Order: sequence, then structure tokens, then C-alpha cells
Amino acid sequence: MTSERLIEITRPDDPRIAEFRDIRERDLTGRESRFIAEGTVVLRLLAGAHEAGGDFVAEKVLLLKNRVAGLADIIDSFAADVPIYAAEAEVLDGIVGFHLHRGVLALGRRTEEGGMNAFLDQLAEQALVLVGCGISNHDNMGSMFRNAAAFGADAVLLDESCCDPLYRKALRVSVGSILTVPYRRQLSGVELLAALAERGFAIWSLSPRGAVDLRDIPTSERMALVVGTEGDGLPPSILAAFSSVRIPQAPGLDSLNVATASGIALFEMAARNGRI
Amino acid sequence: MTSERLIEITRPDDPRIAEFRDIRERDLTGRESRFIAEGTVVLRLLAGAHEAGGDFVAEKVLLLKNRVAGLADIIDSFAADVPIYAAEAEVLDGIVGFHLHRGVLALGRRTEEGGMNAFLDQLAEQALVLVGCGISNHDNMGSMFRNAAAFGADAVLLDESCCDPLYRKALRVSVGSILTVPYRRQLSGVELLAALAERGFAIWSLSPRGAVDLRDIPTSERMALVVGTEGDGLPPSILAAFSSVRIPQAPGLDSLNVATASGIALFEMAARNGRI
Repeated sequence: MTSERLIEITRPDDPRIAEFRDIRERDLTGRESRFIAEGTVVLRLLAGAHEAGGDFVAEKVLLLKNRVAGLADIIDSFAADVPIYAAEAEVLDGIVGFHLHRGVLALGRRTEEGGMNAFLDQLAEQALVLVGCGISNHDNMGSMFRNAAAFGADAVLLDESCCDPLYRKALRVSVGSILTVPYRRQLSGVELLAALAERGFAIWSLSPRGAVDLRDIPTSERMALVVGTEGDGLPPSILAAFSSVRIPQAPGLDSLNVATASGIALFEMAARNGRI
Repeated sequence: MTSERLIEITRPDDPRIAEFRDIRERDLTGRESRFIAEGTVVLRLLAGAHEAGGDFVAEKVLLLKNRVAGLADIIDSFAADVPIYAAEAEVLDGIVGFHLHRGVLALGRRTEEGGMNAFLDQLAEQALVLVGCGISNHDNMGSMFRNAAAFGADAVLLDESCCDPLYRKALRVSVGSILTVPYRRQLSGVELLAALAERGFAIWSLSPRGAVDLRDIPTSERMALVVGTEGDGLPPSILAAFSSVRIPQAPGLDSLNVATASGIALFEMAARNGRI
């Protein structure tokens, strides 16, 4: 079956694979919600995303020819109308603009994103969410989703000033968790937290100068952990309006990076929230 | 004072700053224990390292001319025999081989590294150490030191298969913690853990399939957290010989990355060990 649906690409300028050209220089996000997925793990998640009722569909796949045999089961699980292209290493490198070691690429699309309020309305009574405000670093974005997945968070909520999680590097660092953990990126940080507070969420903003020690936060049915940028942290307007939490650390030191800090705080909150 | 000790560099091929040439392509580590330090935070730590009785000395400093005024206090804190070079942006970029945005570089040297056993012998009765086996990723290495510093670990112990923490990127990611947290990189993993066990350390190897839930490990005076590579984790010989610990996670998921996992486990162990 696999070999029948393969479409061979022999020239880097073939228009059928134009979206994969020079991918290092381009960022597809923001253009009709399309994104580049890389690697076997993410390819497998994307193949199953539509059936799982998720927010993503695959549009096309581009593989190094000698990877095809080992990926037969994944290839077969893509819907029949998703074209599977294959190219020799020389052609593939000419398409993407560098040596693509892994040889596994796909073009995906996020299906229509509903509004934040409707999304929040359907969260379960017992819920744990991770909120990002002003996260602009793609590594940190990817790590936040990975941590959210590891600790069973129900959703990641991003304010409108955050970078797009569908950027190639964020998706790779997340090991595909961006395709599995439901998320929205809408509203300002303050609007977002107000919407959560209205719905009974205990809101804990993470800060090195947070008022409450992480080990002392009370258990509640609905919990939201809020993290800000690594440089400036959360804006004073947010820290003043909601409860703040700190990770106790040795004195006199730079704070942890936001990826690690969100992991530690989510671990503690997931334990209190019955997630782990 | 500052302006008097400045030595102007006007040509990229000046032999006095040869160690900074094309730094992206070169790795100074392994060559007489010299390393490149970047950025204001690391420069400040390096300036104070020798006085603080640490294992590092500064050999020379190279600054972008227009950064000098803002760094006067740090420059004055370097020993008088450390040359401070300054160059215009064009010359500096020509030296390092790319546009050096921050404009702050130094060449440091690790002073003689004593033996592992003598080092372990001088650890305090109540001690917490982080052990790395086969850590080859420089980002992870830097994050491990940053976490060790944040949670007051007494030392980082690396087996001989780990990468050199003095590599430029690891040092940068550590935000200079590699210059402040004492470390040794010697012996095989098994030899290292046996040496710790002999000295009464409770040894906890971190693994997604660890026997004990992190929240259930007993308190002890001397604790060692052991982490392995992200891909393969710790070798079976280590997991079989010592106690293993897991971070509880939502089912069916990829494990956390080693930087985040070591941060979560150190946080819990530091709390038990009275460090935070």
C-alpha cells in the first residue's frame, strides 16, 4: 500500500512541495495557520490528530526516500487524500536549504480556532491549566507544552502577546505536545486571567518574589499556573491583581529559567489537583 | 582607572587576542582548561572568581568599546595583571567571526582540578549533590548547573563521558553557575556512584521507570541525584545497583527533558535536605 501512494519528487523547485522550500528562513505560521512538522514522533501525532478529534489536519508529507520503508505504518495511517512525497537526499536538501538529517517533514494546518470564552466554558470541574503571558522564546514555548503534557494539564492558555506555538522550533522542542494539549492564544493577559477567575480558577502567578511558597499553596478544584517572560517576568498589573507563588531557592541567585520553573510548579500543582 | 588599563585593538589579526578568533568554530576546552566567557553576568562572576577562592582565573578580557563605560566597576575588579582589550564593533565582529551583539568576552582558565576522592572527602556532613552520567548536550549541562545553583546543591559530579561544562554554550546557558558550583569530571559512572555510596550518600537515579515516587523518597543527611542522557537514560548497570526514583507523570507520555527533570527532582530533594 505504502509504495502505491508515494509521489516521487526529483526537482527542488517542484511546485507541489513549495511550502517546504528554505524552511529555515521562513516561518509559515500566521499564514492560514499552516505549520511544518519534523521528525517521526511529531509525524505520528499528526497522522492521528484528525481521527483523535483534535484541532489539526495533515496537508502533505515529504520524506527522504530511504526513510519510507521504516515509516510504512505511519504513512498508511494518513487519510487517503494526503499526498506523500518522497525525494532522494540531494533533492531534499535542495528543497529545505540545508542537510536535513532526519528526513521527515509534514505540512499541517490548525483547523478553525474557537473563541477563548467558549473554550473555557467547556473545561471540566476539576481542571489544571498553564497560562503564558508574553512568552516570546520558542524553546520556552515548546518546553511549556511538554511540561503541560507530562503533568496532565487540561489546556495551555496564551495571551495574544505570546509567540505562535506552531513555529517550527517550538513544535520540535515540545516533542509534538503542541498537537495534543488543547490551547488558545487570544486576549490580553489581564482579560485572560479575569475570565479564568470568573470561572472559579485559583490563579497563581509564578514569580521569584511571589507571596506564597509553592509548597504551601492550598488545594483547589480549578487551578491556573501563570508564567511570564524570562527577562521581565509578569507585569505588575497581573502580580498585584492575583495571588503570586514563588519557588523557594538558595539566596542571591538568578531565577530558574521559565521552562524549568513551569515544570516544577506544574508538578506540585498536578499533585495537589490529583493529576499525578 | 578604567581608561588607563584599556588596550585598544584595531586589527582582527592582532596576536594578543588570538584566542577570541572565530569562536563559533572553535572549542577551546580541553586545551589547558581555557574557556570563553560571554556576557556581563558571567564576566562579573569571573572577575570575582579568584578572590572568592574558586577554581577559575581570568586571563584576558575583550570588550566592545561602547560597553566599557557601563562596565567600569567590573573592569576595576579584575586583578591588575589581567589585560583589558577593547575594540570597535567592526573589529570585534572581524575577530569573533559574527556579529557579537553583547560585546562582552573574556578568556578564563580553570586552575588545577584535584582528584575526585579528595574532593568528595571534603563535602559537608549534610550534603546534596547532582551527578551526571553521559550528559553530552551542552544546553542540558548548563541547565543542570543552573538548577544545582538555584537549589543550593554542594557540587555537580560528572562522569568522564560527560561533555566539558566549560564549553561556551554550556557556560552561557548556566548563567555562569558553572563558575560558582564546585564540580569534578572524572571516573566512570559506576566508580563515581560507588565512591559516593562509600561515603554514606543515599543515591537516587532518576528514571521514568524508577522504583520510588519522588514524593516518597526518605530524608537523609547526604543525598545524590543521578541523571543520565536524554535518549537512553541511565545504563542498566547503574539502575540495578542503586535506588531509582521517578517523577510521576500522566500516562503514555514521553519523559520530561533532563534539564526540567533534574530541576523538579532537585527541588524536592533540596526541600528534604533543608537546602530551601
